[in-house]
Amino acid sequence: MTTAPRRLHLALHPYGVGGPGQHGLWKDPRVAKNASIDIGYYIRQAQAAEHALFDALFIVDSQFINATYPAHYLNRLEPLTLLSAVATHTSRVGLVGTASSTYNSPFNLARRFASLDHISGGRAGWNVVTSFDTGTAGNFGLDEHLDYATRYGRAREFVEVARGLWDSYEDDAFPADVERGVFLDPTKLHALDHEGEHFKVAGPLNLSRSPQGQPVIFQAGVSEEGRDLAARVAEGIYAPGGTLAQAQEYYADIKRRTAAHGRDPEHIKVFIHGSPVVAATDEAARRREREIHEEDKDLGRSLGLLGRSFGAHDFTRYDLDAPFPDVAHLAEKGGRTTATKIIERARTENLTLRQVAEGLNAYKEGPFTGAPETVADALQHWFEAGTLDGVNLAFRTEEELNLFVDGVVPLLQKRGLFRTAYEADTLRGHLGLPVPENRHTAARA
Amino acid sequence: MTTAPRRLHLALHPYGVGGPGQHGLWKDPRVAKNASIDIGYYIRQAQAAEHALFDALFIVDSQFINATYPAHYLNRLEPLTLLSAVATHTSRVGLVGTASSTYNSPFNLARRFASLDHISGGRAGWNVVTSFDTGTAGNFGLDEHLDYATRYGRAREFVEVARGLWDSYEDDAFPADVERGVFLDPTKLHALDHEGEHFKVAGPLNLSRSPQGQPVIFQAGVSEEGRDLAARVAEGIYAPGGTLAQAQEYYADIKRRTAAHGRDPEHIKVFIHGSPVVAATDEAARRREREIHEEDKDLGRSLGLLGRSFGAHDFTRYDLDAPFPDVAHLAEKGGRTTATKIIERARTENLTLRQVAEGLNAYKEGPFTGAPETVADALQHWFEAGTLDGVNLAFRTEEELNLFVDGVVPLLQKRGLFRTAYEADTLRGHLGLPVPENRHTAARA
Repeated sequence: MTTAPRRLHLALHPYGVGGPGQHGLWKDPRVAKNASIDIGYYIRQAQAAEHALFDALFIVDSQFINATYPAHYLNRLEPLTLLSAVATHTSRVGLVGTASSTYNSPFNLARRFASLDHISGGRAGWNVVTSFDTGTAGNFGLDEHLDYATRYGRAREFVEVARGLWDSYEDDAFPADVERGVFLDPTKLHALDHEGEHFKVAGPLNLSRSPQGQPVIFQAGVSEEGRDLAARVAEGIYAPGGTLAQAQEYYADIKRRTAAHGRDPEHIKVFIHGSPVVAATDEAARRREREIHEEDKDLGRSLGLLGRSFGAHDFTRYDLDAPFPDVAHLAEKGGRTTATKIIERARTENLTLRQVAEGLNAYKEGPFTGAPETVADALQHWFEAGTLDGVNLAFRTEEELNLFVDGVVPLLQKRGLFRTAYEADTLRGHLGLPVPENRHTAARA
Repeated sequence: MTTAPRRLHLALHPYGVGGPGQHGLWKDPRVAKNASIDIGYYIRQAQAAEHALFDALFIVDSQFINATYPAHYLNRLEPLTLLSAVATHTSRVGLVGTASSTYNSPFNLARRFASLDHISGGRAGWNVVTSFDTGTAGNFGLDEHLDYATRYGRAREFVEVARGLWDSYEDDAFPADVERGVFLDPTKLHALDHEGEHFKVAGPLNLSRSPQGQPVIFQAGVSEEGRDLAARVAEGIYAPGGTLAQAQEYYADIKRRTAAHGRDPEHIKVFIHGSPVVAATDEAARRREREIHEEDKDLGRSLGLLGRSFGAHDFTRYDLDAPFPDVAHLAEKGGRTTATKIIERARTENLTLRQVAEGLNAYKEGPFTGAPETVADALQHWFEAGTLDGVNLAFRTEEELNLFVDGVVPLLQKRGLFRTAYEADTLRGHLGLPVPENRHTAARA
């Protein structure tokens, strides 16, 4: 038996009318103003991803907005409702949806992901988030956002409970034997009777085991608690990226932590974000990249985005040209890791609020910008340098997605870095992840 | 202006492999054993309903099972995930899904129904249930099922909050005006800031107003609390039915209560359940009806179903031929109205447990069994006798659905009782319900 070559994984992360660094995207005449609520747009994106042999479509989410957020935050479909509609218009591409472990109940959410796994024939993935936006708490009856330790403890237990519920029925629980008159074999239906710190869930789930055994668990841990959670339970990660050196550190750390928990480090796939800009020449690609930057300048939106890391704090109340205000006490309420980095940079570089806000959306040369050959080289370099197993790709327009698919993907295939045909029908199969055996069947053996 | 003639509404209520009175359906060789989790089955049912010009597909639900429940309870897709997949394979038929107000949070559920309304182009309906199965509590961390008053109080406030969230954006909140650089008009985005007895929800929803303004609210109130809730908030009811006289009483009571709340009684549509059995002759239809009854006899399942009305009580522990046991104290834990009726009947008729269980699945001549002309006559009679505005139709097989659609529907059309073409694109349109004006737009006027 020869070992299959390690291959790059690619997912598509559609934004609709504009992600965090795409403030001006809605102004692009090629982008429909209602893209983020147009199911036809998402079906086309999923079909394009499948045509390109990508591993998955990846839908992010938030359950809180305010009027200064970028366009796609303001108005978007709930991810599982979206992905279910997409499922029956595709047959191979994985379907990963974001859902909060802080603001859902395990029984309902486990059932919805298992339903998606059935509907899609084994392509469901759950990106577990603990909800970074503080304001979300206010939409769920809480005065205060739960603290980090509670959110991550809850997330870990939530995944455990969901996996327990997904094993309610053994794979052969329904003989449906007309002659013997037996539809269900009741010995293969198992209650969960979970009682933990955060949840008490009796079970069983009222849904048979899904084609993947269990939907694939993604996570996006940056903090200490987040990395630990990922290493314990995740099978995929939406990693923070950063510089090549930062990505190497994160990648090695996650693989090490995963092994330390007795897990095979190959069974956790690290994805970083990528926004490739592809053109006929490197110069044309850099020109387009700068043009995009000009389109996206929007100080108001940058202040809104900045506020997001500090619990939806309103930064418009400060003097833009005074030193960055003292908001350290708000870091715990928002995205602590990001907020802390911002504060440190503002202090060491002595920045004003305007400089910090503009910096969030400053022009940076992206690593995956250039002619197809250049972009393929860069992806190969990052891949071989141990920074990633896969890339979550975001494009501004369907045309720019096509430039990548038609130009870069064939080069990756020629180099043996990317599949030339789907070799599996399920998301687990695409990612090389094992199908977990049902715990009750295993206990019986 | 002439008044449109009052017309019958028809919805399709698919069971998959067997509903409460269809224990043996899974044995029918024409029914796929996995129908209740096969999205292809539901898509075909929805397309058949749309081909027949029905108002809606109606998906019921429960979040609790035990091994004695009928087949479709054991294993079924979550309704909204199911309906979203169905939505893009149909264009006119309404899509009504059941969801519990006891075991969901308003922000999540309002968002999911609004997403379905966007995805379907204005065809979403929400059947609000308070979760009759006591065992459901155990799947959501509660030791005891909430009592009637709490469940119904919560349901009423839940619908209020959902409607408030659905009005977060005024219809023209997104000018997306490139020249002025204005994507969102922030004066048309409204927080809710709801603080009530059961919920505290800040809002706004991160989803623009959906095509129907607000998804259509269905309810299924039988008890005093249920009828009151329906009369206050429902636009459709899945009524208990019963005898013609009982249905008349219920219909008149609901319309009277609705008017008493200052609402137009035409704006609440009462549906009863119907399981038509259609054949070439009345005799053949009655023969088929009896044959179905024989197929469905299953004492174990009947005991399970009986248990459902008493908080998933295990009735197999009693002597089947002794008098019906004293379980009055369990009525409050289950479906109080049904449980009380069962106890009263057992006492007055001096029944054993076996007689009660068999009685739940006893042979009864259905009102809508016969040759097409007979069934059309019966529907017309019930409709004109003031028992219903519509019927939720359940069929055992796709063939039996077709017998109704090809035989009975044309007769109803000839008599002017049913539409000959869709006259609207939305569920509200089919049901003759007004589109609610956004509350903030109204306040501005």
